[in-house]
Amino acid sequence: MANKTINTMNFLEEKIQTDGVIKEGNILKIDNFLNHQIDIDIIRQIAYELKRRFKGIEVNKILTIEASGIAIATMLGDVYDVPVVFAKKSETANSTDNKYVAQAYSFTHKKMNQVFVSRPYLHATDKVIIVDDFLADGQAVHALIDLVHQAGGEVTGIGIAVEKGQQKGGSTLREEGYRLESIAIIDSMDYETQTIQFRKSAPRR
Amino acid sequence: MANKTINTMNFLEEKIQTDGVIKEGNILKIDNFLNHQIDIDIIRQIAYELKRRFKGIEVNKILTIEASGIAIATMLGDVYDVPVVFAKKSETANSTDNKYVAQAYSFTHKKMNQVFVSRPYLHATDKVIIVDDFLADGQAVHALIDLVHQAGGEVTGIGIAVEKGQQKGGSTLREEGYRLESIAIIDSMDYETQTIQFRKSAPRR
Repeated sequence: MANKTINTMNFLEEKIQTDGVIKEGNILKIDNFLNHQIDIDIIRQIAYELKRRFKGIEVNKILTIEASGIAIATMLGDVYDVPVVFAKKSETANSTDNKYVAQAYSFTHKKMNQVFVSRPYLHATDKVIIVDDFLADGQAVHALIDLVHQAGGEVTGIGIAVEKGQQKGGSTLREEGYRLESIAIIDSMDYETQTIQFRKSAPRR
Repeated sequence: MANKTINTMNFLEEKIQTDGVIKEGNILKIDNFLNHQIDIDIIRQIAYELKRRFKGIEVNKILTIEASGIAIATMLGDVYDVPVVFAKKSETANSTDNKYVAQAYSFTHKKMNQVFVSRPYLHATDKVIIVDDFLADGQAVHALIDLVHQAGGEVTGIGIAVEKGQQKGGSTLREEGYRLESIAIIDSMDYETQTIQFRKSAPRR
């Protein structure tokens, strides 16, 4: 597939360009390697690339949300050799039940979810890298940040595989001062020509 | 914790004995290292132990079910360097939509789930190891077997972290001739004394 940026693409942009499918309505399907079938080489490379970009930051825990964030989080936990926690989703969780609970609206399922982590698995001493496969409006990531803060911990980094640059999640998190690293940032997609424009270099805070 | 079998316990039995919590109603909580917080060393060791036990069998794909099977499946996919597929759950999936669909009753959530995998991710040429964190009544594993068979593929192994030996899943799968490897098999638990009896050696088919 011809593209002006082909020579400067990183491994994930190249994989998206090759194997991703653009559906009508600005939807990118990459479930053949990231969130249904998992290409182990790609997520291993995502983990090592995140660790490289986060060089120097403190981390003693990886936090993600079920289900499709778990594979990348597991590999990143392996690379850092720290525990991984995945937040669970429920329509009914309440915080009296020894849980930290936050709210996240799911645009995919068009409903509000409660997102929770059992209290013993987040601490005031935690330095947490939050990871997820996709970042769009940032609802899930903001819920995870909320859970870490409820425990008194610190979010030292946010690592994302694919950021949808036209949606507000990434810009909001950067404005809030978070150290956000997205390995591929999609600035635009065209269904007719099946082409994707990636952001040339990710802004650093 | 005193236990007659302490000297013969493997790494996972020892971890369960040390960190597991027996709740009333024959419920074992091990979400501090396996299915909420994930101890990377333990799941890495589970992956290597499964590969050791499955020595000589053919595998080109790992299949699990969201959400808590994904971490072990990812690590096993890494150890074998093969793709991982996780089946998704839905109350509404139907097979006209380019999916293989199977039924699984969830005793945890007391409802019937549709379990599905998109057709491109299972093939007639696949030699599949199915993995999951827990095996109790075997509903989830049987649904995964069904999906592999719908695609014309072969289940060459079933790898489980913790099998509840008093429930019928394990014995049924062994009677059906599957090569099932469970790293820890719990034969009984006692809430009052917080003790667990593990099966001494897993039966082989």
